[in-house]
Amino acid sequence: MSARIVIDAMGGDNSPSAEVGGALRAAREIGVSVLLAGDERIIRNEIDRRGRAPAGVEIIPADGAIGMKDPPSAILKEKSGCSMAVAADAVRDGYADALVSAGNTGALFTVASLKVRRLPGIRRAALGAIVPLENPVLIVDSGANTDATPELLQLFAYMGSLYCSLVMGVEKPRVALINNGAESTKGTPLYSAAHSLLAADGRINFIGNAEGRDVPSGFCDVVVCDGFTGNILLKTIEGMGLFMNRSLKNIFHANALTLFAGLLTRSKTNALKKQVDHREHGGAPFLGLAKPVVKAHGSSDEKSIFTAIRQAKTFHESGLISKLGEEFTD
Amino acid sequence: MSARIVIDAMGGDNSPSAEVGGALRAAREIGVSVLLAGDERIIRNEIDRRGRAPAGVEIIPADGAIGMKDPPSAILKEKSGCSMAVAADAVRDGYADALVSAGNTGALFTVASLKVRRLPGIRRAALGAIVPLENPVLIVDSGANTDATPELLQLFAYMGSLYCSLVMGVEKPRVALINNGAESTKGTPLYSAAHSLLAADGRINFIGNAEGRDVPSGFCDVVVCDGFTGNILLKTIEGMGLFMNRSLKNIFHANALTLFAGLLTRSKTNALKKQVDHREHGGAPFLGLAKPVVKAHGSSDEKSIFTAIRQAKTFHESGLISKLGEEFTD
Repeated sequence: MSARIVIDAMGGDNSPSAEVGGALRAAREIGVSVLLAGDERIIRNEIDRRGRAPAGVEIIPADGAIGMKDPPSAILKEKSGCSMAVAADAVRDGYADALVSAGNTGALFTVASLKVRRLPGIRRAALGAIVPLENPVLIVDSGANTDATPELLQLFAYMGSLYCSLVMGVEKPRVALINNGAESTKGTPLYSAAHSLLAADGRINFIGNAEGRDVPSGFCDVVVCDGFTGNILLKTIEGMGLFMNRSLKNIFHANALTLFAGLLTRSKTNALKKQVDHREHGGAPFLGLAKPVVKAHGSSDEKSIFTAIRQAKTFHESGLISKLGEEFTD
Repeated sequence: MSARIVIDAMGGDNSPSAEVGGALRAAREIGVSVLLAGDERIIRNEIDRRGRAPAGVEIIPADGAIGMKDPPSAILKEKSGCSMAVAADAVRDGYADALVSAGNTGALFTVASLKVRRLPGIRRAALGAIVPLENPVLIVDSGANTDATPELLQLFAYMGSLYCSLVMGVEKPRVALINNGAESTKGTPLYSAAHSLLAADGRINFIGNAEGRDVPSGFCDVVVCDGFTGNILLKTIEGMGLFMNRSLKNIFHANALTLFAGLLTRSKTNALKKQVDHREHGGAPFLGLAKPVVKAHGSSDEKSIFTAIRQAKTFHESGLISKLGEEFTD
């Protein structure tokens, strides 16, 4: 049976057009059933104006959407009937296999933890983020847990390593611990203790500490952080990508000759611009939940939503969750 | 009387050639006296092979150098007579006004804290780092204190703000606190408590939290961090700069047409390459010590050493240390 992916159709900056477009493409091209949670009339119009819909497209009616600036807890109160909440209900009730949303990250973490729920024995879910620099690097945790313990960092390392191998297809992923130096004793007490745990963990291919400079250089496939540090790492990479794209534009827009130079290098500079554009960076997977939940970027377009749905499908079919479920018990 | 700057002539990757060249240029162009600490014969040869030395150049003999991989504590034991230690002695003894070194950062922090000493009432010295992106941003602390308290972050903010205005010449510097979100309650308990202290501190122009993405965007002039987070922020910016320079090279070296495009944009791309090249980023000032100590990058060339000496001179003449000394007492 084909995977059934529920999409929060109202949560992103380009909702519901991006969600509907991406979902229809996924139904057509990768054989998934897509359930679009949101305002029935608006979604129906979006589907209709695209011509004949493929098979395997459903609408799950919902009431409104949670905003990017709403407090995450609103999803449990005044926004408990919104598209994101209803999408989470569909996963909780077994009606969908996986959830994709471009909405409020904190609200998604809250509602997914409560409704999709963590696997038994997993104490915290983590948010992974993938940055495609010299190689794709999975940052885990990238922002869900600002308080961490050495044992949680070890859990994040193991879940991240499994995701990297089973979903991203990297053989024997190189797992590193973010730190302020290469030596094993470096960092805060949290990080030096985590280093010892990771070094002793035979399930992962731990290659030691990664300094900030190593992350964009192809040094590792997974970088393990507490959510505070991971968020700053991720956002700094994004900010430098924006800086780089502004700088490239300034170089080529200086005069007629540089515009001509821009034409000569266009395909390569466009590829680079995409590589460092966080809006192109695929979805961020939640790790440790009982079903796949993928956070697409808030500014996702149709293509990003399609990519996130494809990622949720791969995640669902990867066997990662059943493997985690076998290893952890209450 | 002209400022007397002592230079650890043996500690960097390009020692002593870079140090001697940079020091001679400083003596010639900006009217400082330079004291070169290191192996007398080698330094003398370096001076002689550059022709007639300007006035105001002295050698302070020292025995060996501390290596980049030596533990910082070696500076107090088997390396206690090395060029960096002897340079710190010269400042301690009042023979020099300021110290510049391209050597081992941890050893410099250790020896400067013990010999140059902190100002009375200042509980910790911090290491500032300047990254010239959309605007020059001072990151403080960039690595000296991995353990911090809200009060220390407040101290770093105040010292950083003073440095930015008095040495970097920025009027009313915009001071931000690194964090994982814009809201005042964001972050770890350390950061939410620091936010309250900074918001209530009338001595600084606190503009709120900076996310990683804001740092390269011109959002602030000073960004306040604990040393662990600041090191990761700084190194990630450096690593993205290296990534960017590799990417630019790949774009222009693809074929004859792109090489031609490279010629057309050469001056602008070279300027950008320098902007993101951490080796070009001037020296990192220690803040809170009784005399200026500036850490030049390990891979400093002659020009970087000259720049760091000029920075130490400006720091010395800025009145920053006497102002701090008046405000803090034991």
